[in-house]
Amino acid sequence: MKVLVVFAHPEEKSFNKSLLDTYVEHLEAQGNEVKVSDLYKENFKAVVDRDDFLNLEKDARLKPAYDSYAAFAAKQLTPDVIAEMDKLIWADTIVFHFPLWWFGMPAILKGWVDRVFACGFAYGFGEYSDTHFGDRYGEGTFTGKKAFVVTTCGGSKEQYSDRGINGPIENVLFTINHGLFFYTGCEVFPPVVIYRTDGRREEGFQEAVDLVKERFDNFDSVKSINYRKQNFGDYEIPSLRLKEGLEQPNESGYDMHITKN
Amino acid sequence: MKVLVVFAHPEEKSFNKSLLDTYVEHLEAQGNEVKVSDLYKENFKAVVDRDDFLNLEKDARLKPAYDSYAAFAAKQLTPDVIAEMDKLIWADTIVFHFPLWWFGMPAILKGWVDRVFACGFAYGFGEYSDTHFGDRYGEGTFTGKKAFVVTTCGGSKEQYSDRGINGPIENVLFTINHGLFFYTGCEVFPPVVIYRTDGRREEGFQEAVDLVKERFDNFDSVKSINYRKQNFGDYEIPSLRLKEGLEQPNESGYDMHITKN
Repeated sequence: MKVLVVFAHPEEKSFNKSLLDTYVEHLEAQGNEVKVSDLYKENFKAVVDRDDFLNLEKDARLKPAYDSYAAFAAKQLTPDVIAEMDKLIWADTIVFHFPLWWFGMPAILKGWVDRVFACGFAYGFGEYSDTHFGDRYGEGTFTGKKAFVVTTCGGSKEQYSDRGINGPIENVLFTINHGLFFYTGCEVFPPVVIYRTDGRREEGFQEAVDLVKERFDNFDSVKSINYRKQNFGDYEIPSLRLKEGLEQPNESGYDMHITKN
Repeated sequence: MKVLVVFAHPEEKSFNKSLLDTYVEHLEAQGNEVKVSDLYKENFKAVVDRDDFLNLEKDARLKPAYDSYAAFAAKQLTPDVIAEMDKLIWADTIVFHFPLWWFGMPAILKGWVDRVFACGFAYGFGEYSDTHFGDRYGEGTFTGKKAFVVTTCGGSKEQYSDRGINGPIENVLFTINHGLFFYTGCEVFPPVVIYRTDGRREEGFQEAVDLVKERFDNFDSVKSINYRKQNFGDYEIPSLRLKEGLEQPNESGYDMHITKN
């Protein structure tokens, strides 16, 4: 495997960093290649602004989506962004590893997405017609790559379960798994979630290591999430509404975008 | 009203900034007080790191949640964070206004949340017992305040509808409306969403202005989102699972955390 881990935690001595180091060592010992984008360590610029687009004229009105497209096409994105794109292209397996803060990615990782997933690179291309609405949701730049999340959270598994007050973890992570990974063509695997990390004592560490190792060691036996592809008949175009009758009885919301059969 | 708008767009001449200026002027003309946290303009620090906690010892291991609690208690958070807290306390109405980037907040706004919603201030207090699990989800520091999102997105309304491929906008924004606003005690109002902004021509601007003005001018007639409070009998404690039978038939996922009657 060629694994890219995009990692976001500010503390070198953290639970998450120790976990990262341990599974990276494990992967490399097995002959895999691993690259880590350690966003805090690299002081990765988290915020999209006009400095991101080297060909933007000084007084021009900044339009982030359009300008990222223009800069990508003209090879005028910044070197830090281009380096991340190169790593994404290189990888066959993409991992986002982060602590879940306020039910989402730490800002530095969200900013990495905002900057690196440029228009023309991660979205905004492909045919637009009566039967096709861009290369996205099941087709895209990352077709053929596997992706999943490794995350730690303070809440318990029950609190993120089907009836839990935080919402099911599958819903909490939907905008990442479906909105980023599947959108850009990845095959998406269930997240590795380590619950109650805030209250975790050191003996919980090995359990977390085992969870992540198990994912990598048995990747072939793990079933990916069966999100519905956009351009293969399930959706009306251009409304992109799921055609009537395709969902299971009682399905609503996010759930109906996963095929159950 | 005392309105705090937390605003995140990098361009002074943007659709969003023009929209902001227009409704702020309207609100002030009607005698309301308005404060704007213009995060890009203020170059707000987006990333949580050890510089946020003035009392953290140089070589100590950074534990973001714990250290934010300790720094809040000791009044050792940074002046920029304390200024935002003061504005939140002052406001009776809180608006997050941002372009929807990758189905979420721009990193600078996520970072504002990560930094300002400190432990002890926004979460992590109140009684923990057999009948109460902290002051959160319907109780908290912001009890009595109204909150809602104003956002622009490139996709169409259909694409964010009940059957739309992006998921219903209520789900996409759940981690903000429920996970931030309701969690901290706010009364949460439906978002004002301006669709297809990327393709919008200038004549769409007045429509957007009207949408936001209508919200403010008719606030008393708008029904807030009826999220279920955590500590008032609907949830098992400490699993925080919704008690069996309280949901409507066929409800699942996020939906069951909204009371329908």
